[in-house]
Amino acid sequence: MKNVAYHISFIGAGNVAWHLAPALENVGHFVKEVYTPNGKSAKKLVGNLYDAVVKSDLDFKDSPSQIFILAVPDDAIKSIAQEIILPEQSLMVHTSGSKGLDVLEYSSAAASGVFYPLQTFSKNKKLDFEQVPFLVESENNEALKILKSLARSLSKNTQIVSTAQRKQMHLAAVFACNFTNHMLSISEKIMSNAQLDFSLLHPLVSETIDKALKHSPNSVQTGPAKRGDLETLDKHMEMLGKDETVQEIYRLISQSILDKE
Amino acid sequence: MKNVAYHISFIGAGNVAWHLAPALENVGHFVKEVYTPNGKSAKKLVGNLYDAVVKSDLDFKDSPSQIFILAVPDDAIKSIAQEIILPEQSLMVHTSGSKGLDVLEYSSAAASGVFYPLQTFSKNKKLDFEQVPFLVESENNEALKILKSLARSLSKNTQIVSTAQRKQMHLAAVFACNFTNHMLSISEKIMSNAQLDFSLLHPLVSETIDKALKHSPNSVQTGPAKRGDLETLDKHMEMLGKDETVQEIYRLISQSILDKE
Repeated sequence: MKNVAYHISFIGAGNVAWHLAPALENVGHFVKEVYTPNGKSAKKLVGNLYDAVVKSDLDFKDSPSQIFILAVPDDAIKSIAQEIILPEQSLMVHTSGSKGLDVLEYSSAAASGVFYPLQTFSKNKKLDFEQVPFLVESENNEALKILKSLARSLSKNTQIVSTAQRKQMHLAAVFACNFTNHMLSISEKIMSNAQLDFSLLHPLVSETIDKALKHSPNSVQTGPAKRGDLETLDKHMEMLGKDETVQEIYRLISQSILDKE
Repeated sequence: MKNVAYHISFIGAGNVAWHLAPALENVGHFVKEVYTPNGKSAKKLVGNLYDAVVKSDLDFKDSPSQIFILAVPDDAIKSIAQEIILPEQSLMVHTSGSKGLDVLEYSSAAASGVFYPLQTFSKNKKLDFEQVPFLVESENNEALKILKSLARSLSKNTQIVSTAQRKQMHLAAVFACNFTNHMLSISEKIMSNAQLDFSLLHPLVSETIDKALKHSPNSVQTGPAKRGDLETLDKHMEMLGKDETVQEIYRLISQSILDKE
């Protein structure tokens, strides 16, 4: 390992901690403690780690760790950050994409920051952290160096991203992930209404996404709106007649594609 | 090869013919002729085939083929189908997803049908036809058997799909492909406005699509609308303030996700 090895404690044992803690150990860091309020899920996670111990109170005054990772639900970050008692010279970070640095401002940490792995985490699916972008932020230069080094020990893709940028990115992710998924949902429903299996469209969807990510989605747009094929647009609007919301989604997105021409 | 070997002629030498003709030869069929109006791109395609010849007129009276595949732009199918002179006992098919059986009704073919590979074709990218769904249709039972056998010789996924179903599927594909791509386009623009590289979101997008196709998009929907997180929805609407169309797209899709709850 090329990087410094850190002593780290986790506050929270949800999906993020579940993947991140063992991954940090795998690249040579030491996870010393895992906290959850009743210690139950912390115990499960600790079972997957080398020599971490379970904590069920927030007094970390005598902790051997330098870095404290808050991997808790967004809405819990602020209150836990205020409540937790940390050793001197500690660095506390949260792992949220949508919360700013400000939620940590009343903590007792010597320095605070954001350590955000930009990926969805499911307990049952293994992640290749090398491919996960890590976005780090801190107003303290020394802390920023530590976070960069920590992120680089896991991932090939580490970037310093400000709170303002991260908010824009969260909005961009809603379009790129949540809304693409909803488009697939609508498609699935049209297929099942026509007694067709949605899996027929899988190869086409995979190919479309591959192309969009390989080139640039804007440069590979296709379809009736892109072609200015108003006859097909009218026909489709008619076919969607019964579902006003979906019809309006069709109209608006087609309009947005047409507007770009 | 488990299937009957057919003698086949291609009308058109665009992306579909470019991939389909060699693939048919690879599984043991014989491509005998390729027609284009001036013979130029037909010559290129024939260069990739075993013993096909170039045709630049539509008189196929003495053709050795049984199957004639019209792989021409949608709007050209009808007129070419009327013009072409075919041998007796010939089967003519088009390869279009959006055209019905009716565009072939005035042809001289003994039987007609649809032979539609459900995938996008780009000249420079090799396709694995085994994974491409083939949708076949004909009102003639004998022809339908031949089309099923032809499709099965190429692909693991062959289905009989009616013109009405294919039209619904085309609409479903607009949502699943064209509209998902446009969502990625909007996302890319939000990222670049915030001086962020869209590639940061690539792993997240890939994971989202993988999940949606593995399970069902409806069952894996996430995001602020799904959570009923109205505070974030309001914040995002405000951030999109300058672009009315995109703001309205955000509002409508979020509404559509909320409506499902």
